[in-house]
Amino acid sequence: MREEATAFVPGHITGFFSAHPAEDPTKAGSRGAGLTLTDGVEVTVEPAAGPEPTVVLDGEPIDVDPVTTVLDTLDAPARVEAESDLPIGSGFGVSGAMAIGTALAANRVFERKLSRNELVTIAHGAEVQAGTGLGDVVAQAHGGVPIRLEPGGPQDNKLDAIPARARVEYVTFGQLSTSEVLSGDTDQLTAAGTEALSRVVEEPTLLSFMYASRAFAREAGLLTEDVVGTIEDVTAVGGQASMAMLGETVFALGTGLSDAGYDPAVCATHPAGAVLK
Amino acid sequence: MREEATAFVPGHITGFFSAHPAEDPTKAGSRGAGLTLTDGVEVTVEPAAGPEPTVVLDGEPIDVDPVTTVLDTLDAPARVEAESDLPIGSGFGVSGAMAIGTALAANRVFERKLSRNELVTIAHGAEVQAGTGLGDVVAQAHGGVPIRLEPGGPQDNKLDAIPARARVEYVTFGQLSTSEVLSGDTDQLTAAGTEALSRVVEEPTLLSFMYASRAFAREAGLLTEDVVGTIEDVTAVGGQASMAMLGETVFALGTGLSDAGYDPAVCATHPAGAVLK
Repeated sequence: MREEATAFVPGHITGFFSAHPAEDPTKAGSRGAGLTLTDGVEVTVEPAAGPEPTVVLDGEPIDVDPVTTVLDTLDAPARVEAESDLPIGSGFGVSGAMAIGTALAANRVFERKLSRNELVTIAHGAEVQAGTGLGDVVAQAHGGVPIRLEPGGPQDNKLDAIPARARVEYVTFGQLSTSEVLSGDTDQLTAAGTEALSRVVEEPTLLSFMYASRAFAREAGLLTEDVVGTIEDVTAVGGQASMAMLGETVFALGTGLSDAGYDPAVCATHPAGAVLK
Repeated sequence: MREEATAFVPGHITGFFSAHPAEDPTKAGSRGAGLTLTDGVEVTVEPAAGPEPTVVLDGEPIDVDPVTTVLDTLDAPARVEAESDLPIGSGFGVSGAMAIGTALAANRVFERKLSRNELVTIAHGAEVQAGTGLGDVVAQAHGGVPIRLEPGGPQDNKLDAIPARARVEYVTFGQLSTSEVLSGDTDQLTAAGTEALSRVVEEPTLLSFMYASRAFAREAGLLTEDVVGTIEDVTAVGGQASMAMLGETVFALGTGLSDAGYDPAVCATHPAGAVLK
């Protein structure tokens, strides 16, 4: 057994998605597209002092169901310490990042000898089961600007990507509960997500992604007043902004938010997926 | 049209492979596994001054068939300038790197609006058609330590990966012609490659990869005297080394070659696949 291992997992802003439930959580998931971010989560795993696992985020003990499930599945009684650049519950995939970071690092510390796809499958299934996300894990494993053409873990899904990178700015006004939205009626959302995906598949550019993402946010009925106002402010100065799914967060390409007079966090798309450090 | 674009593509050392020909070059390819490297190729594309494309590698004009095919396919009369950290013809996937780097950068400069998978498919097909490689392009698009479970481009293949990173050292004694080896009888090689792959799938660790790679090099009958002696020297000091397919190149994990008294080039596995800069 190694003493500890650390993984970095990029954040992931979902621009749009459609929900695809299934009995088997490794086959359930979402189609959609998003931006993985250089702002992310660093996850360090070491053997726990006692028999019970402990999970700490930014210094505070926390219960993160997908992380507990990953540790159970890997038979890894571990202490997990995560440091996040990103706010939780605001559409950046922090829970997904913690799940896959834990899987990668625990596999190393406890020498479980699983493949990358196996680890991603475990983290994806744990996230779906917890209802905290449907597509962040596979996107965060991929990096770049992934397009999720088929739902599910790596054995079932099909990914493509927009071959581009960009500076990304964001501001957050508050949380939205992913599990509440996902457990409600998702028909309208899924219709809007399917429409958005076909647009981006037809023209896989960042501009068409932003356009599809804005149309999705409108049609899915998830916009809040703060979000609408901010997107309008960015549009007014000629910028490209949309809403992160699912959080009360506005993201923009380039200097869109700064140009509109906001004081955003600044990062960029991340070229790589989740990695051991 | 943009003025220019630059892509970085990691080098790729194939540890073992099996050849899988097919009529359609986007479906042909290889199974196997390898290491993508932080030493790689930077490819800059700009519109050509005249109607004919020009290709330059490390300051010298050069004909690289897969690059010409990629430019033709993208209808991109370009000047391509590549700078390589790696020797050509020695098992590092330089031609594959030039093909996919050209595809990514030309797509941007000439605004062809293709997806990442489409660009990788074009580069992979061009490389297979030229006979210069069978699996480098898809591995270089993936990054990390990819396991190629099924041959072909992104529409057909299936990738997994060893979830690990490592320092990598290498020394090169000379070139081997990939197209000569691949155009000969590949039955013995493919049997050895299939055996090696099942070992690594069973235990996806760097150690089992190095073991499988050495067994492959022996059984495929590609070892040269220099290579055998060098691998033995590394083994004698407790290190892990094998031969890069296809080149007269020995690579080692960690400080294997330095420990054995060689003066190797030093790099590491690369966490990301080919990226626009």
